[in-house]
Amino acid sequence: MTAKVGKNYKLTLAYDGTDFLGWQRQTKGPTLQGVLEEALFKLCGHPVTVWASGRTDAGVHARAQVVNFWTSSPRSTVELVRGGNAILPMSMAILSAQEVTEDFNARFSAVGKTYAYDFSIAPVRNPLLVFRAWHVGPKLDWDRIKAALPLLVGNKDFKAFGSAGSEVKTTVRTISEAVLTKPEEDIQRLTLTGSGFLRHMVRTIAGTLWLIGRGRMSPEELTALIESKDRRRAGPVAPPQGLFLERVYYDPAL
Amino acid sequence: MTAKVGKNYKLTLAYDGTDFLGWQRQTKGPTLQGVLEEALFKLCGHPVTVWASGRTDAGVHARAQVVNFWTSSPRSTVELVRGGNAILPMSMAILSAQEVTEDFNARFSAVGKTYAYDFSIAPVRNPLLVFRAWHVGPKLDWDRIKAALPLLVGNKDFKAFGSAGSEVKTTVRTISEAVLTKPEEDIQRLTLTGSGFLRHMVRTIAGTLWLIGRGRMSPEELTALIESKDRRRAGPVAPPQGLFLERVYYDPAL
Repeated sequence: MTAKVGKNYKLTLAYDGTDFLGWQRQTKGPTLQGVLEEALFKLCGHPVTVWASGRTDAGVHARAQVVNFWTSSPRSTVELVRGGNAILPMSMAILSAQEVTEDFNARFSAVGKTYAYDFSIAPVRNPLLVFRAWHVGPKLDWDRIKAALPLLVGNKDFKAFGSAGSEVKTTVRTISEAVLTKPEEDIQRLTLTGSGFLRHMVRTIAGTLWLIGRGRMSPEELTALIESKDRRRAGPVAPPQGLFLERVYYDPAL
Repeated sequence: MTAKVGKNYKLTLAYDGTDFLGWQRQTKGPTLQGVLEEALFKLCGHPVTVWASGRTDAGVHARAQVVNFWTSSPRSTVELVRGGNAILPMSMAILSAQEVTEDFNARFSAVGKTYAYDFSIAPVRNPLLVFRAWHVGPKLDWDRIKAALPLLVGNKDFKAFGSAGSEVKTTVRTISEAVLTKPEEDIQRLTLTGSGFLRHMVRTIAGTLWLIGRGRMSPEELTALIESKDRRRAGPVAPPQGLFLERVYYDPAL
């Protein structure tokens, strides 16, 4: 861990998570944190530690992950973007960089997030979507799924969608928006915006909606499931390749 | 080459060309023809040769490539689709299979094709589009490009967009439609439909439109370029990863 010396920078990143073991640095193989810290080390001339808004799992993608890091390097934000993108592998890009106040921390300052989860509804697997969506086929009842979405919205204890054993003080979160769109012919996209999400929460909601779409749970049962706080009653954790971190929200004053 | 014994089947395929050396079977590495013929060998119990509507280059994708092959195997079309997809790598899928007349040949019976070419207009490279589009950035003038499209349409000698040294009897082709759409925020998609295309023709048109979009050629100059039949006056061959074979057209009686 590097000290808070120099300037505090916020970076917005996009990445294709397919070939990585996830966000968090580890020795078993390539991670997103690892390649980013390595690129910033080369660029800044000193070891760099980045803090992310949250860790994404192996195979999960980001259209706009946010991190911050401290550096004593005189690099400008333009140099960080251009220089960083010249060093980074093609699977990651720095979309923007800005100097932020010393109080800004990508994780603890985040006030909300948007995630998307893509279901492929193609009759046969679409090879161009294999690592970008969960192939559920054409038979789900999307009207049933749509009917269930409003039941997710609100300030609730989402313990039923959390992963066992994760250490969080509270499993209460606020989901402010849950929508279904069809950005292309073969895709149904679930987009969830909220104050924050438990580990595996979006994927477990996706897996539960899949149960509803298959007719194995009624939309109304979703409320009872949430109130039960019983993870065993929820659906499976949907596979990682359908998940995209879309946006992280911060107080603009930071 | 296998003899015309048994039944003649038409297969429609989708593939992600990223990890292949192109369509045509070769010994240097994996090819799309190679993995398909291997899967059909396992499925049919005898060596199989497939004829494609055309060869796609390394890195080029297909949403609906068409092939035909002859087999004495009693496999039904449903078994060919299900069994084939169980054996094929995730990067290829058989979308449909049908028995066709003995006169059907995927290449020689084709009466037209549609190709799409995707340009990524993101300010910074989008890691999720690196192998799906040509990253040209946000600065091209798409109105200029749009103004040039009608000049491509018609029955013309497209020698200026052909690859030197390719053996074809005539370089005259008909382009019936040339349109520009914006299927997602970061993508401008050129879609060309025609009677057939010379080797590298779509990519060379894409490279020439890029010159026009950069202001280095006027839309009107496109007509003079086509009439000159001079390959040196056209733009560069745009990179393969932006190209998608969208559809192949046949006489429905075959």
